[in-house]
Amino acid sequence: MGKKYVENIANMEEDFAQWYTDVVKKTDLVDYGPVKGTMVIKPYGYAIWENIQNYLNEEFKKCGVKNAYFPMFIPESYLKKEAEHVEGFAPEVAVVTYAGGKELEERLIVRPTSETIICEMYAKWIKSYRDLPVKMNQWCNVVRWEKTTRPFLRTSEFLWQEGHTVYSTYEEAEDDAKKMLQVYKKLGEEFLAIPFFTGKKTESEKFPGAENTYTIEAMMHDGKSLQSGTTHNLGQKFAKAFNIKFLNKEEKLEYGYSTSWGVSTRLIGALIMVHGDDRGLVLPPNVAPIQTIIVPIGKDNDLVKKISKEIENKLKENNIRVEIDERDNSPGWKFNEWEMKGVPIRLEIGERDLEQGEITIFRRDTLEKTRIKIEDVEKEVLNLLIDIQKNMYKKAKDYRDKRIAQATSISEILEVVDSKKFARVNICSDENCCIKVKDETGATSRMIENENLKLGNKCAICGNPATRTVLFARSY
Amino acid sequence: MGKKYVENIANMEEDFAQWYTDVVKKTDLVDYGPVKGTMVIKPYGYAIWENIQNYLNEEFKKCGVKNAYFPMFIPESYLKKEAEHVEGFAPEVAVVTYAGGKELEERLIVRPTSETIICEMYAKWIKSYRDLPVKMNQWCNVVRWEKTTRPFLRTSEFLWQEGHTVYSTYEEAEDDAKKMLQVYKKLGEEFLAIPFFTGKKTESEKFPGAENTYTIEAMMHDGKSLQSGTTHNLGQKFAKAFNIKFLNKEEKLEYGYSTSWGVSTRLIGALIMVHGDDRGLVLPPNVAPIQTIIVPIGKDNDLVKKISKEIENKLKENNIRVEIDERDNSPGWKFNEWEMKGVPIRLEIGERDLEQGEITIFRRDTLEKTRIKIEDVEKEVLNLLIDIQKNMYKKAKDYRDKRIAQATSISEILEVVDSKKFARVNICSDENCCIKVKDETGATSRMIENENLKLGNKCAICGNPATRTVLFARSY
Repeated sequence: MGKKYVENIANMEEDFAQWYTDVVKKTDLVDYGPVKGTMVIKPYGYAIWENIQNYLNEEFKKCGVKNAYFPMFIPESYLKKEAEHVEGFAPEVAVVTYAGGKELEERLIVRPTSETIICEMYAKWIKSYRDLPVKMNQWCNVVRWEKTTRPFLRTSEFLWQEGHTVYSTYEEAEDDAKKMLQVYKKLGEEFLAIPFFTGKKTESEKFPGAENTYTIEAMMHDGKSLQSGTTHNLGQKFAKAFNIKFLNKEEKLEYGYSTSWGVSTRLIGALIMVHGDDRGLVLPPNVAPIQTIIVPIGKDNDLVKKISKEIENKLKENNIRVEIDERDNSPGWKFNEWEMKGVPIRLEIGERDLEQGEITIFRRDTLEKTRIKIEDVEKEVLNLLIDIQKNMYKKAKDYRDKRIAQATSISEILEVVDSKKFARVNICSDENCCIKVKDETGATSRMIENENLKLGNKCAICGNPATRTVLFARSY
Repeated sequence: MGKKYVENIANMEEDFAQWYTDVVKKTDLVDYGPVKGTMVIKPYGYAIWENIQNYLNEEFKKCGVKNAYFPMFIPESYLKKEAEHVEGFAPEVAVVTYAGGKELEERLIVRPTSETIICEMYAKWIKSYRDLPVKMNQWCNVVRWEKTTRPFLRTSEFLWQEGHTVYSTYEEAEDDAKKMLQVYKKLGEEFLAIPFFTGKKTESEKFPGAENTYTIEAMMHDGKSLQSGTTHNLGQKFAKAFNIKFLNKEEKLEYGYSTSWGVSTRLIGALIMVHGDDRGLVLPPNVAPIQTIIVPIGKDNDLVKKISKEIENKLKENNIRVEIDERDNSPGWKFNEWEMKGVPIRLEIGERDLEQGEITIFRRDTLEKTRIKIEDVEKEVLNLLIDIQKNMYKKAKDYRDKRIAQATSISEILEVVDSKKFARVNICSDENCCIKVKDETGATSRMIENENLKLGNKCAICGNPATRTVLFARSY
């Protein structure tokens, strides 16, 4: 058996699924709710979500997007207005049939996503090209009744943000879908230290009701892909279904062009499975609820206490999220605890180091320990936080870049994904070839990397001329 | 007919209910959702809610409260565990009976409040006195199927925060309920410019399942009371129903003592009805989404443009929420628009003033206009924002203080509330006397102001010795 670094956390190479379950529970991110498939997001997990919210709210604001809130209950008739949409979502909705002591006349769908109700409102509000673009976002809970669930990755209820826009031209809507994809990509680069693959979904993997769906996908430690966010150019499909019409500059009535885009608490699952190790979580500093933990060694020692407090205050002044662990447990126990919880930096403050005017600084990502001068602590911590963030991104990128392999046949695709890699495949425009890969290998088309493949390439499946390069992988 | 200052907004003295409806719609705070009783909170309204969230998150943090998220669906059996609680909420719940294509085995209640599901989780997490206190809060949507609804005041779905704590003694729980009431009171004083009445609810007005309920109530412009937030000492009632037991210091198992407390989007209704006037909204600077609006007069004039932009930048550097209105409409139209939307300060920037090195500053609360030197603009705006905030609080307090009258009989109570005031009543300990007032006047006991009334006072209803002073009012 592989070495177990932490009691109750499985070795990740031996049983990655169990490792994940152990980590989310043991690190106090989440617990199972009483209703099957639901989760309780505990404070340590929720603080990660709040940090993501704050980051994205800033970015959305720069894009001119305003937050709002739309009702959770959608009349069943709305869901049915867009044919592909209802087909996609009907099997997994939860339905309120009874309220206020009475059977309802019309059943209410608990939103699985809000295109229908938001488009209904937009149709009331939008009259003229002067009202466009409209760009709103909401942070809310959504419900999708899934058969197999896992905390953060797939739960009956989850939290997300959903942006919804309307433009007066197709091009603007297409630009919006691409631009918001870049916002999500940057969230990965700057904040989550996750190098997302970005690209367009193939026909069979699109959002129900979209013209084009774009996706951010991350490679998990086990070589599977996690779809971590999507943006959709909905064209005029929803505008026609909900009658969103505007008077254009030529004073003619025209249907609007809409988009939608979202990321969810699933991102926390991505963080865990991209960065985690056998000791537990490894959190990138920018998103970590606690960036630096101070562990006093010999906590009844007055000097240790005093210096610990002084350092805490100095770091707080520098807007570093810092805490002192003053509990009764041993230093060794605390080291394990905070390593498991993925805190980027640990400061060990002990009497013997202090005699030399020094403290010990430990970085979670590389597990390296060094001694630094007390007077350098702010500078050292600030620099190290930046360095850890960069290093974690680089490490994740190196990991994934080594795990992509070209495949030129179904059997090669199978071989590649069985070896926990993504398969890069030249393929023709016939979506049936993508579906064939799925049926025979269990790997799905994650995204189109290149839609303008040069002449002379052959489809790995049917041998006809290939027009595009598609990434295939097993996925969550 | 009274003067109508704004088209489509009713005169508030003539028809306050219509005035309210007009204001919320016309100022873009809210729209009606498609399902009866639901509301869409539009960006201008939602920004107010976000400001309240930011304020309270800071205050909660100071109290050691951590944010978390609990599932929205509550198994019906949970709701039934606490007898008073189910009786209070059963008539107004929405019920999911069908999900994922199947009839559910157990019906799921959409949370009307989360004591039951949170206590169920706390029972799993709490083992020892070392785990206490537990203090969590969640920001979420809740559903209560009400017969009569009004935007912000009473809607089938609304947004709120609900804090839930567990302590090891009754006294700590009681202190928590009182302390959080003070947090809400301070929110009124510092942020919403609303002088809340605070006190304990009488027996018949308590939260279903509470030992003690404390309330913040505000007097609306029409002399009615709006319950704007409550805190509850739940004693051991929920701990017993959900088996929250901890090992105390003497190593004996004991039930915990819990509290809960919340404020909702109803606060936005309070803001409107406390401060609004015949021109529309009047927003206190601290909570206003836009604190200062800049209206360029002659917006094609290059100097006007340049100075407008410079002033905007200067104010932004001072963290003032400022916007320039560069739309095609006339200055007069814009003045009305922003007065209606309650923006605290308007800066008018025109060529003629600029020649004197001056601009015009208008304050929404008193409708006063003065001219100031351009170089003083930051100082003047910063000072005026503080002054408006103070003045609005004082004005609201003066208004309410004049509208409280002592009443010594049912007929006097009726007279007082008919004249749009609150009645202060000495009353005995028998709750039936409170209920009698309600039945005969339509005014309910809003809170106990004094529980230790001196001997010699008589109950205004039955003539027996009075033990307490209670405020009665009609209410929303």
